[in-house]
Amino acid sequence: PVERAVTRVVTPGTLTEAELLGGDENNFVAALVEGEEGYGLAMLDVSTGDFYATGTTDAATLRDEAGRFDPAEAVVGPDVSVPEAREVFGGDCMVTPYDAGAFGFDRAHERVSDYFGRPETLLASPAEIRACGALLAYAEYARGTTDEGERDRLDYLTHLTRYDPREYMLLDAVALRSLELFERRSVHGATGTALVDVLDETACALGRRRLHDWLRRPLLDTDEIRARQGAVEELVGDLSTREFLHERLHDVYDVERLIARISRGRGNARDLRSLHDTLAVVPALREALAGAESDRLRDLHERLDPLEDVRETIDEAVAEDPPIELTEGGVVREGYDERLDELRQTEREGKRWIDSLEAEERERTGVDSLKVGFNQVHGYYIEVTKANTDRVPEDYQRRQTLKNSERYYTPELKEREDEIVRAEGRADDLEYELFREVRAAVGDETERVQRVADAVAELDTLVSLATVAAEHDYCRPEVGETDSVHVERGRHPVVERTQQSFVPNDAHLPREAPVTVLTGPNMSGKSTYMRQVALVCVLAQIGSFVPAASARLPVLDRIFTRVGASDDIAGGRSTFMVEMDELAGILQHASEDSLVLLDEVGRGTSTADGFAIARAVTEHLHDETEAFTLFATHHHDLTAVADSLPRARNRHFSATREGGSVTFDHDVREGPATASYGVDVARMAGVPDSVVERARALLGPEEASNGHSASDVEPATNGHHAPDELLE
Amino acid sequence: PVERAVTRVVTPGTLTEAELLGGDENNFVAALVEGEEGYGLAMLDVSTGDFYATGTTDAATLRDEAGRFDPAEAVVGPDVSVPEAREVFGGDCMVTPYDAGAFGFDRAHERVSDYFGRPETLLASPAEIRACGALLAYAEYARGTTDEGERDRLDYLTHLTRYDPREYMLLDAVALRSLELFERRSVHGATGTALVDVLDETACALGRRRLHDWLRRPLLDTDEIRARQGAVEELVGDLSTREFLHERLHDVYDVERLIARISRGRGNARDLRSLHDTLAVVPALREALAGAESDRLRDLHERLDPLEDVRETIDEAVAEDPPIELTEGGVVREGYDERLDELRQTEREGKRWIDSLEAEERERTGVDSLKVGFNQVHGYYIEVTKANTDRVPEDYQRRQTLKNSERYYTPELKEREDEIVRAEGRADDLEYELFREVRAAVGDETERVQRVADAVAELDTLVSLATVAAEHDYCRPEVGETDSVHVERGRHPVVERTQQSFVPNDAHLPREAPVTVLTGPNMSGKSTYMRQVALVCVLAQIGSFVPAASARLPVLDRIFTRVGASDDIAGGRSTFMVEMDELAGILQHASEDSLVLLDEVGRGTSTADGFAIARAVTEHLHDETEAFTLFATHHHDLTAVADSLPRARNRHFSATREGGSVTFDHDVREGPATASYGVDVARMAGVPDSVVERARALLGPEEASNGHSASDVEPATNGHHAPDELLE
Repeated sequence: PVERAVTRVVTPGTLTEAELLGGDENNFVAALVEGEEGYGLAMLDVSTGDFYATGTTDAATLRDEAGRFDPAEAVVGPDVSVPEAREVFGGDCMVTPYDAGAFGFDRAHERVSDYFGRPETLLASPAEIRACGALLAYAEYARGTTDEGERDRLDYLTHLTRYDPREYMLLDAVALRSLELFERRSVHGATGTALVDVLDETACALGRRRLHDWLRRPLLDTDEIRARQGAVEELVGDLSTREFLHERLHDVYDVERLIARISRGRGNARDLRSLHDTLAVVPALREALAGAESDRLRDLHERLDPLEDVRETIDEAVAEDPPIELTEGGVVREGYDERLDELRQTEREGKRWIDSLEAEERERTGVDSLKVGFNQVHGYYIEVTKANTDRVPEDYQRRQTLKNSERYYTPELKEREDEIVRAEGRADDLEYELFREVRAAVGDETERVQRVADAVAELDTLVSLATVAAEHDYCRPEVGETDSVHVERGRHPVVERTQQSFVPNDAHLPREAPVTVLTGPNMSGKSTYMRQVALVCVLAQIGSFVPAASARLPVLDRIFTRVGASDDIAGGRSTFMVEMDELAGILQHASEDSLVLLDEVGRGTSTADGFAIARAVTEHLHDETEAFTLFATHHHDLTAVADSLPRARNRHFSATREGGSVTFDHDVREGPATASYGVDVARMAGVPDSVVERARALLGPEEASNGHSASDVEPATNGHHAPDELLE
Repeated sequence: PVERAVTRVVTPGTLTEAELLGGDENNFVAALVEGEEGYGLAMLDVSTGDFYATGTTDAATLRDEAGRFDPAEAVVGPDVSVPEAREVFGGDCMVTPYDAGAFGFDRAHERVSDYFGRPETLLASPAEIRACGALLAYAEYARGTTDEGERDRLDYLTHLTRYDPREYMLLDAVALRSLELFERRSVHGATGTALVDVLDETACALGRRRLHDWLRRPLLDTDEIRARQGAVEELVGDLSTREFLHERLHDVYDVERLIARISRGRGNARDLRSLHDTLAVVPALREALAGAESDRLRDLHERLDPLEDVRETIDEAVAEDPPIELTEGGVVREGYDERLDELRQTEREGKRWIDSLEAEERERTGVDSLKVGFNQVHGYYIEVTKANTDRVPEDYQRRQTLKNSERYYTPELKEREDEIVRAEGRADDLEYELFREVRAAVGDETERVQRVADAVAELDTLVSLATVAAEHDYCRPEVGETDSVHVERGRHPVVERTQQSFVPNDAHLPREAPVTVLTGPNMSGKSTYMRQVALVCVLAQIGSFVPAASARLPVLDRIFTRVGASDDIAGGRSTFMVEMDELAGILQHASEDSLVLLDEVGRGTSTADGFAIARAVTEHLHDETEAFTLFATHHHDLTAVADSLPRARNRHFSATREGGSVTFDHDVREGPATASYGVDVARMAGVPDSVVERARALLGPEEASNGHSASDVEPATNGHHAPDELLE
């Protein structure tokens, strides 16, 4: 057999080995092109075959779309510089300049045609075609060439998804991070929890990646949202089907990666068995959906093809518990190939003969201590102690002398040994040849396997959403039938899991009064509340149920956040500059269908400048943009501004100081707050008493005596005592 | 040969393979014990043998020491819970509960004695002995046991460094992060630069790790500081020696890891050759230091032993360019072992015979197209086309039938083939045996190799510091002869490299007026200035020269920072709470020998509360602590406070608005600033004009017309135009 001399190139974006990839998550490599008609962006996961393309003329949108997929590597041609690409893809992404020729239109067009048919029907611009073509070329290059230096087609790339950025809710990198959709922040030395973690009850890697994809791209299409909701609702209502499906889905292997490896001629025998075992699960999944009523589940029932022929091909040829190594035997099932069975028979017989040799030779020589043994260097031998060497027969030939014994062989033993070694070697080689044939045959069915994997992924994700909804008391939101945000008794999906008790809150942002200014002391719950409103909207738009008693929601085009702060010293941007930069982005891009979260704008400058900016921003969002806006602030003057604006409202969180401790009730109320309790927090954090007392004295009798209005002083019935459960 | 069945346990802290370890940096596993007499903490890098132990009764000090080493894994016994350990080691560290028995005093004592001799002379408390003993036990466990289930002593652990936390300047996790000593923050999509990056001109991994260690533990001992400075100074003054050393050090392999692998019986032939090649460099290093004058370089000259015997042992036995695999031949040099040379000779002769066979058989049969070939499955064969099969001699036996030809073998060919296969197999096995003997012999010299590595590491680090000092115009600071901080024309060592031009600034914090309140607009340079003062002090205390025209510095016991801000939402702590928490730590632990950097305290609460806290804190640091303090603020009222305090000073950075842009001169000056330019920054960041104009209008004519005093309005001669070079 001609061995293929493969020169693989391993880069962060083109890893395909499960051991090198961190986990189940997608690992994308991107290609970026800037043409006359705008940008073309392509993203490919070579380990699964997931392939996306999009285009835009707007640099900000380009960054946002790149942020969705968070590629590990980006390939650029001559029209995009490395620093430009770094701006787009972020600092964790490796930027690789690649062959200009591959980015040329003609070659790219040809390559895309070769894989997916006529590019013009699939992609929207020459830039997109060039990005996709160049990315295919790069993936082929990284995969390595054949002996003859020929390119090697990646047959498992069967599907290219082209989408328009405007088809999905936009969550830019800032929003993704501050809403913690995927990012786990380290907290008190423990790893934090992201939204995707509380949502992930998937049973297999296929579902896990699909869930990430849905969260990455919340929908704008209400029909699709409702189709998913319908499936979730049916599964919420049917515990036994849900649990049955979940249980069976646990036995599904990562077939997207398996078939990708198999189709590239890199899968081992265990990979084939894993594919077989997964296909064996499909009939049960299909059967469980036989009586489904929702359109989406009925559709999945159709799509779950168990691929009997593929399963049988594998089962007949590949042994049930094969080793990882393909060249050392044990891979092919007995009975599959006559030649192979014969070689193995020869091997076994030879070994049996040697097994019986010791008894025979003892009898023949009369030496009871005679032993037959094997040693890596010298092969089989007959060992006789020095005392008995005179009883050794004529045909014994000396092989090795030890301290207390001699080792011999006989011509017959040597012949048998040669026979065994040769049969074993040939059988191993033959098995490898046979295995490669089966692997190639299965690889030919890649597209069918991928279609089944697609259906399984969707089913697992729907089951996961239903499980979370049922176990954590989520409701089905009405989406797109109203132009107001209306949530009753909503909860923060992550915080409600990590805190011992959680106080639900309503959120009403009607079209006619979309702006709310939110005040209240530190840790009273403002930040949690704002994020909770945003997360409920995100969940609704991926088709999930939401943590609330009920919800009626509009379809949001985008969520903006300006919360928290981080210095960017070596990059030369102050906290304040970062803040203003993000704010500018919001003011430029928000629409009346956007949700804007602002947490304290204008902190990093003087009080007068900061307040002037905060006020001007509030007025702009109120008068011009009319976006749904939640603005948390300590500038108490801003509450007076809200009072003076017709479409703005004041809401606040309050607290009560009793004895030495401050109690928060975490309940959002009408009107503005009046006290901030900053000095109390300083005391709780362990600032020395003398400093705390001095600060109180400086505040004067008026402010130091709580300073809150009568309405705030009330028994905190469902309140918590800080600092046990500090919560903002 | 008896093969050892090794069951290795791979954990984040016990990786030893270079491919799995990220780079040259240390990878520590820690063990923590809490006893009656306080905590015992041990840290071990199993890949290099670096082993540290320390003890403290204070939980905060414990966290700080753990933070210095930043272990990948921590092992705890019964007296420390997993959550406690997480608090100590941080969220990125894997916490592993381990066998209580190993943490028991008697077993730990015995194990430490076995490795390092009497524990009482080495370690300060029973808790430290227990931590070290348990860590040794864990390292042995992770390394795996022998066939017989016996523990396997780690002979390369020859040295244990016990230190007192009070011997080093303390830099807690907050300070390490905010001063960016090691952390590279992502900036504008590009990876940022840490202090260690601009300081690292080391040529080998040994020096690179040593530099990290020095930065991790800046000295308090002025004698040691001066000894290092003396060596650096001599190297700064001798360009040719410095360049020669640097060049030669490039050829040094990571011998700490090599000898650790070799001593554990895991090194391959290339590892031995790399050790050989490194030892071959040592004589040149030694020679270059022959005329050194500084004590430290003379001392290194003594310690650089070229270990001729070890080098020869390797060179005689191991081939010059060996393969990675040890069992496939090519590892042992020809001429080293007679038996081996004979086997290889047999192999070669057999192959030569087969090489000549084709010509011979063509002549014998008269078939010109006859070919001799080899195939994995069937071995050697003689191939004859179908047309010529009638001319085949009697002794040809049929082996395989192809479409157009037949393949044969002859008894003699078969015999030769067997001979080759057997000789090859036996030679491979013998080579492996011989190699293991040599490896074991070299492993016995571990301690001597480690001593040379230690000297090389120190030399490389000193050369690196000298290179940076010479190339970037650093000066030798006077350390410990004054109790005031006095820097002339100081620069930020990182920012001066990443910005096109950099304005140096003086820093004077005399003992009699240690507190400075720093004001000025955003991006005028306050944050950079504060960090620059801290970094100059850190560099001085590791023995490095510093980026300044001249510097006289005290020995600081600790540097505190409270800068930047980060939300900790799922952890339930607001920005403000994190800020107060860090502030409390500073107020509790700072001494008159500490440097405290505060950047805007009290931002996350109401203006009144924030100012009261900021003032009380300033007064406390001024009256009670008397620490060297730099307090940057936008609370302009705080400048009046500084004016009223006898040991506090006001300093400011200023800016000029000219036409549409703001110019910063980045020059620190006496007295307070008067304008903050917040609205200008908002405009530069891209906040829409209408919003900017509205904010200006709200500020009123007084504040909007720059608002700065006459002293600020002056031509910015060496100034920069924002936003091209934004800088805070």
